[in-house]
Amino acid sequence: MNTPPVPRKKKSQGLARYVPALGWLRTYSGETATNDLIAAVIVTIMLIPQSLAYALLAGLPPEAGLYASIVPIMLYSVFGTSRALAVGPVAVVSLMTAAAINNVTATMDVGYAAAALTLAGLSGAILVVMGLLRMGFVANFLSHPVISGFITASGLLIAASQLSHILGISAEGHTLVELLLSLATHLTDANPVTIAIGVTATAFLFWVRSGLKPLLLRLGLPKRGADFATKAGPVLAVVVTALLVWGLRLDEGGVRIVGAVPQSLPPFTMPDLSTDLIAALFMPALLISIIGFVESISVAQTLAAKKRQRIDPDQELIGLGAANLGASLTGGFPVTGGFSRSVVNFDAGAETPAAGAFTAVGLAIAAMFLTPLIYFLPKATLAATIIVAVLSLVDFTTLRNSWTYSKRDFGAVAATMLLTLLLGVEIGVTAGVLLSILLFLYDTARPHVAEVGLVRGTEHFRNIHRHRVLTDPSILSLRIDQSLYFANARFLEDYIYDRVIDDKALKHVVLMCSAVNEIDLSALETLEAINERLKEMGITLSLSEVKGPVMDRLERDDFLQHLTGAVFLSQFDAFETLASEVPGLSEGETGKTLTRAARFAGA
Amino acid sequence: MNTPPVPRKKKSQGLARYVPALGWLRTYSGETATNDLIAAVIVTIMLIPQSLAYALLAGLPPEAGLYASIVPIMLYSVFGTSRALAVGPVAVVSLMTAAAINNVTATMDVGYAAAALTLAGLSGAILVVMGLLRMGFVANFLSHPVISGFITASGLLIAASQLSHILGISAEGHTLVELLLSLATHLTDANPVTIAIGVTATAFLFWVRSGLKPLLLRLGLPKRGADFATKAGPVLAVVVTALLVWGLRLDEGGVRIVGAVPQSLPPFTMPDLSTDLIAALFMPALLISIIGFVESISVAQTLAAKKRQRIDPDQELIGLGAANLGASLTGGFPVTGGFSRSVVNFDAGAETPAAGAFTAVGLAIAAMFLTPLIYFLPKATLAATIIVAVLSLVDFTTLRNSWTYSKRDFGAVAATMLLTLLLGVEIGVTAGVLLSILLFLYDTARPHVAEVGLVRGTEHFRNIHRHRVLTDPSILSLRIDQSLYFANARFLEDYIYDRVIDDKALKHVVLMCSAVNEIDLSALETLEAINERLKEMGITLSLSEVKGPVMDRLERDDFLQHLTGAVFLSQFDAFETLASEVPGLSEGETGKTLTRAARFAGA
Repeated sequence: MNTPPVPRKKKSQGLARYVPALGWLRTYSGETATNDLIAAVIVTIMLIPQSLAYALLAGLPPEAGLYASIVPIMLYSVFGTSRALAVGPVAVVSLMTAAAINNVTATMDVGYAAAALTLAGLSGAILVVMGLLRMGFVANFLSHPVISGFITASGLLIAASQLSHILGISAEGHTLVELLLSLATHLTDANPVTIAIGVTATAFLFWVRSGLKPLLLRLGLPKRGADFATKAGPVLAVVVTALLVWGLRLDEGGVRIVGAVPQSLPPFTMPDLSTDLIAALFMPALLISIIGFVESISVAQTLAAKKRQRIDPDQELIGLGAANLGASLTGGFPVTGGFSRSVVNFDAGAETPAAGAFTAVGLAIAAMFLTPLIYFLPKATLAATIIVAVLSLVDFTTLRNSWTYSKRDFGAVAATMLLTLLLGVEIGVTAGVLLSILLFLYDTARPHVAEVGLVRGTEHFRNIHRHRVLTDPSILSLRIDQSLYFANARFLEDYIYDRVIDDKALKHVVLMCSAVNEIDLSALETLEAINERLKEMGITLSLSEVKGPVMDRLERDDFLQHLTGAVFLSQFDAFETLASEVPGLSEGETGKTLTRAARFAGA
Repeated sequence: MNTPPVPRKKKSQGLARYVPALGWLRTYSGETATNDLIAAVIVTIMLIPQSLAYALLAGLPPEAGLYASIVPIMLYSVFGTSRALAVGPVAVVSLMTAAAINNVTATMDVGYAAAALTLAGLSGAILVVMGLLRMGFVANFLSHPVISGFITASGLLIAASQLSHILGISAEGHTLVELLLSLATHLTDANPVTIAIGVTATAFLFWVRSGLKPLLLRLGLPKRGADFATKAGPVLAVVVTALLVWGLRLDEGGVRIVGAVPQSLPPFTMPDLSTDLIAALFMPALLISIIGFVESISVAQTLAAKKRQRIDPDQELIGLGAANLGASLTGGFPVTGGFSRSVVNFDAGAETPAAGAFTAVGLAIAAMFLTPLIYFLPKATLAATIIVAVLSLVDFTTLRNSWTYSKRDFGAVAATMLLTLLLGVEIGVTAGVLLSILLFLYDTARPHVAEVGLVRGTEHFRNIHRHRVLTDPSILSLRIDQSLYFANARFLEDYIYDRVIDDKALKHVVLMCSAVNEIDLSALETLEAINERLKEMGITLSLSEVKGPVMDRLERDDFLQHLTGAVFLSQFDAFETLASEVPGLSEGETGKTLTRAARFAGA
């Protein structure tokens, strides 16, 4: 069953390239609008409690969460390339925001909310600049395992940080240890009523996620209705607990509530651009930008793939950058494309970024008219929505998979998780990225070199230790399984010297370069040295299966003139040509091969 | 003409492994002793002015140069693995020492000489620890071009820094600009007599290097004698200029002289180990250790190769570390294996590290009895010896070679040179190393992928754009010329999607993995995604020529069960098997190939 192929990405020109909206608006129909509108309603209902909650997580007043979800989402719908991505405050970025701002407010005389604006502005500027420099590829340097490990660890940190609200106590800290200690010390001031509300709300929300939908379907509700009810679950929790607090005046009993939230559209705000604040926030902003971008782009690409759509990473940088600049000018804080909200948006049938714009309108209405209703909303309820949301991010399968598949990946993931939990998000993710790159470099520095022989009846050469192959005592065929560059040139040199030393029969060394994609200047010098040394030992050096690009470059140097052997099109040519100089191959060879193979396997 | 092969390096056990001296002492004969002794005499004569000069370059009193050449060389002869390496103060490291110490003495209340001891101690500790951790491989991460560029730039910096002594003025600075400005501003205080001495000495020493030896040989002097005279040249300059100053009391005419130098063996000194001094000097010490190690190991390996000897990089770290610890305890400063002195030692016939020990004795005698003789030695003469020595390090050929061979290498070299000259040695070399690594990463992130076809009459597959090959419209054969890992997985995914989109005839995609040495977890997830997507498009995905180690790992995952195609031993097998499903190949194919090739070449 052939499904329609992916539409080829056409590079749009001029303005349209930087304003993708101009593309989809041209074909915008009434039907599409209806679908977008329906999706928007569902997402809005889901976002109201969520954005309040993430503001709480970021350490900001609840309205900041609403503001951060209005203008940014509109700007993204103009500049972004994803059809379904929903931009706004997300868990991990909110946590990183809290960590970054607490650091600066601790040492500098600057307002918390003001620092949040500067952080969003910086992050927006960084993203736009990266986009204009077409640096979308940097996302590739964060390995999947490292990211998933980081998200999982952050999820645990976030859940731990929300426990204090569930218990009705105040706990501080940016590492698991700090948080748990702080919780333990304040445990005595725990408020029973708050606990009752918090635990019930959490349990209820978990049940809504898992148990509600099947139940409703069994009761014969149409699927769409069931979906809607599930999305509305959090709102129900918000309403019920708010009414409870109001009816029984539980706030006088010590239950912490959201309190007065201004009724207004997002205000115009000017971020503090003092140089020392910018200097202090630059690195955190850079980290937040990259992490946010990677989280957002992976969500966008996953959803786009399902509809055979394509995402342009460079334009995404600009879209997210615009969103963050918008956030910094309208009382928000750093935002990015969120996983859960985007999936909801997608499932609800959003077809274009217009859905995002409609959502923004919905939230604007909420900001103007509904805020009085959340005066009595207990913070414990918001904490419950956060905990339920982030625990869905926690996923240890990567840890298990990487353990069975590759210890190197496992090491990177484990280190990222541990460091994130013990030393905080910034150190954790930085260490993870650096570690995965260093491990890769370390591997390329000791290339895999295989001694190969001819697979009987073919022209194909394989490792003499893994296959029953023909070899010739006068020829040493080495397949180099790595590009040759400064970090591994010396290794090859030593390998060859150690191998040829006591092999008296040897007349020719052939380097099979099928896996050599590059030979840099350092490696070239090394090859010249090897050629010289082998010459002194009466052994010729030849190359085979040298790739076009590599060959082009070698021809610019005089190495090929000094080469004692030749450059063969294929290893088979090399073998035929050189072997013909000595008594032809006999069955005996195979025996010899195997004994030699055995000897090496032993070594 | 077979020459004896390189003796295989045998891993010595226990104490002998960490004390190589135990090895060569066992077979130490009288004849060897004689050769070592002769070499020692020549090296000693050469080292007396050189070590005074490098102390001057490092900003320390002249005797520090002698002290740094006595105990360190003895310790290296016990712990080092090179037979000919001569350890002591060298130009580049002395320059880095001056830079590092000026930085700390500018901000902290610590003596210059005291800081030098701490720097040497730190560097020694770092080297020993690296040695015990068997981290000799780090030397590989400095590319040859970057190092040679750095050495050249340092040479220029050093020469510039010595001009002030030639002119008899005091100029400060650690970058070319600073130095030249400082020279310009003080030019008016230049001392004519000093200039006369300095210029003459410089000219004389250049002549000794180039013109003297041929002359003596023409005059019928035996080669060894001529060599000796050449080495003694600097000493002659020292003696003559010192006598001049003494005879004509030129010092009263403003010629700066070395002055009083204590007559004594190296004193026992305890480095200042205050934590903040250590903190301030750690990074410089790390840089000095690595640069010193790389310079030393490349000299040692070059010389060892000539005699079919082997160097153990890990043990070298311990040897150099011991030498630096020794320097910090006996009034010295950071040392390493020097190029010129080692070559002289080697040419003079040194056979074992004992030559080094004898040299140390010679210098100890000099320190005790000869220092009064250099009271009147003008600093200009020492400056002249430095200039002549370092200008031999200046070499722009790397710049030219890298330009023709690889723009990437050129970029790294040029950046290293410029930054070293303009921003100083520490920034220069750090930037060079990081840049060469980033450029390598950037390349591996966009792997070379070639569409391949069968070379007529062989089983060999080559790029359809470079060779006249057979292809089958239903088969897309892609040779991936790079290991697949997190940084390039996404690139491959996009490449394949873009390629298959509008190729209706396509039934099979075969990834030829002959160049794939690793598939990490991120890349595996990507392959699973590609397999899924192609499946939906009715196209199978197969792999060919998967390497043993890669295959072993793939088998630990369930990817191979989901794979829609097969894993073929060779690309030829894959082609035969899959092609047989459609009308066999006809001459027409070739035409088709070429048109397709043309289309792609155009794209």
